[in-house]
Amino acid sequence: MKGKLIAVCVVIAGVLIPGTVGCGQGREGEPRGKEIALPAPATTGGMSFTEAAAKRRSVREFAPGALSLEQISQLAWAAQGITEAGRGLRTAPSAGALYPLELYLVTKDGLFHYLPQGHKLIQLSDADGRGDLSKAALGQSSVAQAALDIVIAGVFSRTEAKYGERARQYVYIEAGHVGQNIHLQAVALGLGSVSVGAFRDQAVSEALGLPGDQTPLYIIPVGHPAA
Amino acid sequence: MKGKLIAVCVVIAGVLIPGTVGCGQGREGEPRGKEIALPAPATTGGMSFTEAAAKRRSVREFAPGALSLEQISQLAWAAQGITEAGRGLRTAPSAGALYPLELYLVTKDGLFHYLPQGHKLIQLSDADGRGDLSKAALGQSSVAQAALDIVIAGVFSRTEAKYGERARQYVYIEAGHVGQNIHLQAVALGLGSVSVGAFRDQAVSEALGLPGDQTPLYIIPVGHPAA
Repeated sequence: MKGKLIAVCVVIAGVLIPGTVGCGQGREGEPRGKEIALPAPATTGGMSFTEAAAKRRSVREFAPGALSLEQISQLAWAAQGITEAGRGLRTAPSAGALYPLELYLVTKDGLFHYLPQGHKLIQLSDADGRGDLSKAALGQSSVAQAALDIVIAGVFSRTEAKYGERARQYVYIEAGHVGQNIHLQAVALGLGSVSVGAFRDQAVSEALGLPGDQTPLYIIPVGHPAA
Repeated sequence: MKGKLIAVCVVIAGVLIPGTVGCGQGREGEPRGKEIALPAPATTGGMSFTEAAAKRRSVREFAPGALSLEQISQLAWAAQGITEAGRGLRTAPSAGALYPLELYLVTKDGLFHYLPQGHKLIQLSDADGRGDLSKAALGQSSVAQAALDIVIAGVFSRTEAKYGERARQYVYIEAGHVGQNIHLQAVALGLGSVSVGAFRDQAVSEALGLPGDQTPLYIIPVGHPAA
């Protein structure tokens, strides 16, 4: 991804340098960026499950207009939000509660990594990476046009440690759980979304600067449906 | 699966023998069984998406008690129901709208194949196959105990024809879409469910008598949560 990485925090040997308040823990070994607190998600009310399931259709054409931080918060929560404090269980089930998925958000304002713990974002870049991401997705215009692209990446090794060769299919199924939650939440917010599975993995990894152990599995453009 | 196959319809060279009214079209080449019309599913109302996502937890212990035909209808619809008549689009998105998944229901009353077109079941057996299915799932008691086991099978070739080697991951992701819809619908109905991915594929195929081109991907026991 072009544009400078936002690394306002410096960590040496695990010690946060004083004066770098507001910095959050990103993925291990990554540049740590500005932390953005998300508003608390709604966990009751809104559209019924049945209505969202009945109304969901793939939306590939979007009208201009960014999403609000409330909408982004709600979508991130639906995808991977923590719904049980004790063990940190989430909105979508995961084999052995190992949670091998990482969520990235790409908007005109930059690249963000969602941290379920604390329900917050870490800003990794301030450049609009949607164009590069669209190129990595074989030029699909929905990716360039949507206000928000959600990229689900998987760390197979987290699940392989317990489940061996069956792990990969579990991780893909879990990406599906998360994807469906995103689609349904988008409908419930009056937004549209589409499943994008056709992309060059390596190009997406480069566009997002993913760590080597993360594989992009799924891209979901979300935005205001075109009239 | 033990117990006799119910094959009240006879089809020779594609012609339904007269006098076998009430028989439905199953999967190609399979014994055709008794057709069971399902009540129309609710497509509005009920629990909100956010509340269902917040409340969903894996439920592995079930109280006795069968599900009503209304509940079975609603779960099957959430999984694979048709929500757009024109192209037959469904509650969960599928790459290229190719719909490689087949849904089987296992209860004390037998084995049933869900047909999205017409929203109906075809009864393939009248034997309770939950015990055999549990054995194929490494003895997991939730599978034997649940009122209903939903088995999602995939026909990889349907998606491979268009998407080649990327098809397998698409099919697993789609099983995840469907699984999440089932989990959310279960919560909305006051029921519980759990993801079961650990099973011997061949043993599940034999327990259900799956055609050779179908691979079991996912088992979801659903029932009344134990107190």
